[in-house]
Amino acid sequence: MHVDLNADMGESFGPWPMGSDAALLQVITSANVACGFHAGDWDVMAQTMALAVAHDVGIGAHPGFPDLQGFGRRRMQMSPDSLRNLVRYQLGAAQAMARSVGGTVRHLKLHGALSNMTSEDMALAKACYEGALSVDPDIIIMVLAATQQQTAVEALGCRWAGEIFADRAYNDDATLVDRSQPGAVIHDADLAGRRMVEMVKAGAIITESGRHIPAAVDTICLHGDGATAVQIAQTVRRALAEAGVSLQRFEGRQGAISKT
Amino acid sequence: MHVDLNADMGESFGPWPMGSDAALLQVITSANVACGFHAGDWDVMAQTMALAVAHDVGIGAHPGFPDLQGFGRRRMQMSPDSLRNLVRYQLGAAQAMARSVGGTVRHLKLHGALSNMTSEDMALAKACYEGALSVDPDIIIMVLAATQQQTAVEALGCRWAGEIFADRAYNDDATLVDRSQPGAVIHDADLAGRRMVEMVKAGAIITESGRHIPAAVDTICLHGDGATAVQIAQTVRRALAEAGVSLQRFEGRQGAISKT
Amino acid sequence: MHVDLNADMGESFGPWPMGSDAALLQVITSANVACGFHAGDWDVMAQTMALAVAHDVGIGAHPGFPDLQGFGRRRMQMSPDSLRNLVRYQLGAAQAMARSVGGTVRHLKLHGALSNMTSEDMALAKACYEGALSVDPDIIIMVLAATQQQTAVEALGCRWAGEIFADRAYNDDATLVDRSQPGAVIHDADLAGRRMVEMVKAGAIITESGRHIPAAVDTICLHGDGATAVQIAQTVRRALAEAGVSLQRFEGRQGAISKT
Amino acid sequence: MHVDLNADMGESFGPWPMGSDAALLQVITSANVACGFHAGDWDVMAQTMALAVAHDVGIGAHPGFPDLQGFGRRRMQMSPDSLRNLVRYQLGAAQAMARSVGGTVRHLKLHGALSNMTSEDMALAKACYEGALSVDPDIIIMVLAATQQQTAVEALGCRWAGEIFADRAYNDDATLVDRSQPGAVIHDADLAGRRMVEMVKAGAIITESGRHIPAAVDTICLHGDGATAVQIAQTVRRALAEAGVSLQRFEGRQGAISKT
Repeated sequence: MHVDLNADMGESFGPWPMGSDAALLQVITSANVACGFHAGDWDVMAQTMALAVAHDVGIGAHPGFPDLQGFGRRRMQMSPDSLRNLVRYQLGAAQAMARSVGGTVRHLKLHGALSNMTSEDMALAKACYEGALSVDPDIIIMVLAATQQQTAVEALGCRWAGEIFADRAYNDDATLVDRSQPGAVIHDADLAGRRMVEMVKAGAIITESGRHIPAAVDTICLHGDGATAVQIAQTVRRALAEAGVSLQRFEGRQGAISKT
Repeated sequence: MHVDLNADMGESFGPWPMGSDAALLQVITSANVACGFHAGDWDVMAQTMALAVAHDVGIGAHPGFPDLQGFGRRRMQMSPDSLRNLVRYQLGAAQAMARSVGGTVRHLKLHGALSNMTSEDMALAKACYEGALSVDPDIIIMVLAATQQQTAVEALGCRWAGEIFADRAYNDDATLVDRSQPGAVIHDADLAGRRMVEMVKAGAIITESGRHIPAAVDTICLHGDGATAVQIAQTVRRALAEAGVSLQRFEGRQGAISKT
Repeated sequence: MHVDLNADMGESFGPWPMGSDAALLQVITSANVACGFHAGDWDVMAQTMALAVAHDVGIGAHPGFPDLQGFGRRRMQMSPDSLRNLVRYQLGAAQAMARSVGGTVRHLKLHGALSNMTSEDMALAKACYEGALSVDPDIIIMVLAATQQQTAVEALGCRWAGEIFADRAYNDDATLVDRSQPGAVIHDADLAGRRMVEMVKAGAIITESGRHIPAAVDTICLHGDGATAVQIAQTVRRALAEAGVSLQRFEGRQGAISKT
Repeated sequence: MHVDLNADMGESFGPWPMGSDAALLQVITSANVACGFHAGDWDVMAQTMALAVAHDVGIGAHPGFPDLQGFGRRRMQMSPDSLRNLVRYQLGAAQAMARSVGGTVRHLKLHGALSNMTSEDMALAKACYEGALSVDPDIIIMVLAATQQQTAVEALGCRWAGEIFADRAYNDDATLVDRSQPGAVIHDADLAGRRMVEMVKAGAIITESGRHIPAAVDTICLHGDGATAVQIAQTVRRALAEAGVSLQRFEGRQGAISKT
């Protein structure tokens, strides 16, 4: 029994630092590195990639909308063709940076509003993923488990890994509980740890009401903004280790998961 | 006896077209494609690369300063480290785009003020070229013949190709005659054609005063802005063909040229 | 009986020209000048403003989304607060440029997707217009007649002017016929001229089916992209003049139009 | 006897915070607000301006190069004409923001590399200041005392104020001691306070060697990056107050200072 731990990083830009990359790299097994459009720049990318290689953490490209001021969190109405090219461009930049510091980009995860939109719209998700696959057919696409992102990778027949959140509660249809609801965001590190152990062992998303939804629990998303976040990340890692779950990079599955 | 013909392209941006890419692709054997920093964007790059592949024209990355409004023509004081990463980033984006349309980036040429500065300063040139070589050790670096760019590639021991201009007059030290001087820019297509035939056959830059400076005449730079430019390009191509010079992509030389 | 003729301009950027500003300035009485976010830059703005002053054409600020590659034509999900500031910023830049060349910004018109979204959503329109009015309470807001933009200015009680299109057909609910429908865009200059004379005289939008919708016909939007566009602009101007309609800048109305 | 205290602020961008604006606004009498090119954005500007108005701190526009990733600290080769327009644009945006929150832009100070370059080159300084004065002839230009910036404002005959640094040592020609030299940057808050009292009272820059250079000591530049910086700012303010120097906004002088 094993699982991957991932976190977004390389989100500094120019003179502005962001995140706790150094601390998180001690915890995670996969890093999603910003590619210069919503965050990150050529220098930040080079430093982040080098750090990831030094920690033997798997490198992923983390493309987002061309919207630095909005940190890629604002929805933009882009055509599927343009999204395809947008992902190609950012993935290529990430690959070059990784290569130049002795690493490789092995996975891709969409950022912010681009992730939100593609989790709801399979056509958009397919456009983005086709862009990535046209550059590297073997890349592992990290998807929000049980969303249209997953539908898209299953349709494409590519390698993929399913992601769940350590600090968010789930509704009975596998969507996230809205942030406006009490309990939507989990701040208790021990609770987060216990939940993750349960879900990984069950191979399922466990909802607020206790329902088990079989899901591809390949990687757990951790956050790095704020001291609490890093502490949650560390606690989740420890809880999984103590429960006998080994922490290692996902290898990527191919095809649909069996829904039992 | 053979030579390559190159031109900058993919310099449109968003809704703004630029250049005569379609016409030039009929003439040239190598295309220098803008990478989104001084010109070009993810969509323009994809279209330009696809067009280059369709015309069987060699693809090069053409990185420039991060200065869209200035078209990369303003000198910027960037550190060698940052330049190294800047080139990596843009080269990677270009590689991904080429790959996704069935092509390959085989050469790299610096744009605008970045080219001017590196032609005068070997340390800057080395930083840029090291960036490119750390991504692809086999890439062919296109240099302004007989400048510090050439000194840099010789020092690095990488593959390279020397470039001369079809429409510019040369001083006796192999620098270009300043644009403020009469005759600095050649507008007569036939004259440009005759000059290129002479230089390619001589393996030398021939200066205003008639002096021959042995040089790596591997590729001739053509321009595409304005109807005259395309006509000069076509005339140069025809003149070379008629003189028995075959037009083909450079293979790249390695090491210093012998100065006889 | 009089009407204003307006056109978007100053949409060049850096090395990329766009539009037929010089020709249009001979035709129009009000110019909507791009403010550097979707098009235009500090140099283009200065030149365009100076040209408008020289032609005694009224100057308007034409703010858009922060999306140069998409020319402000992609919808972006921005908060009303951020839109308010976005409009303030661009209007201020335009005012300074106008002042420095001896002119004044007297009106404001939203561009592209920002115009589309605010024509459908009064809250968004109000946010943008409140931003403008907080900078200049006397500015005249140019609105798409009979849309939520008009509802917004009536609610705000500010000065405003209603705009109709010379080259677009209208549905019976005063919305534009979708571009995918035949006849949606009018390419016949004489037809465009006749329609405008009719609408101005009627003080109404006249729809495809011949229905008259009383409307604030204060200004007519002309386009400048392509030789045909300029010809339509010239023809519309001539037709209006021949019909005894005088061409002059709008003064701006205040409050709701009477719907008879 | 009085002096002004100024600091740069509004240097956050999008999701990235920077500086200690809230703390500094308790200390200073004039705020130099970034205008969105090297730092700051429309939202940050609105918030910073509102905060400055609330603290009754004088507002200044702080334009810089169009270089966000480099924070405006990289020299760029821009033409005087383009610099003139660049300053106009940023000043106008700042004026609109100030106006919309009930304030006024009363001074202008150049940022980063643009400040460095104009302190060495009077023609560049004049271009920038002419740009500002063409927008507002009454604006007070804040200059680095005893540099080409001062020469420029004296030549222009405009209102200006001279600035010295609280935390930097001076050479005998009034230039700053290079940061690579020991003692170039003053980290001792009490020392900084004593020096400022001396210089304000002497109406002179006092150099490392003890030489007095008569200078326009109208405002003292404080920094806000790091806890030490804020402490130095507070200490300088206290030292001046205790020495009977009143802290108030500069009114701006006109013409050359008398060199006694």
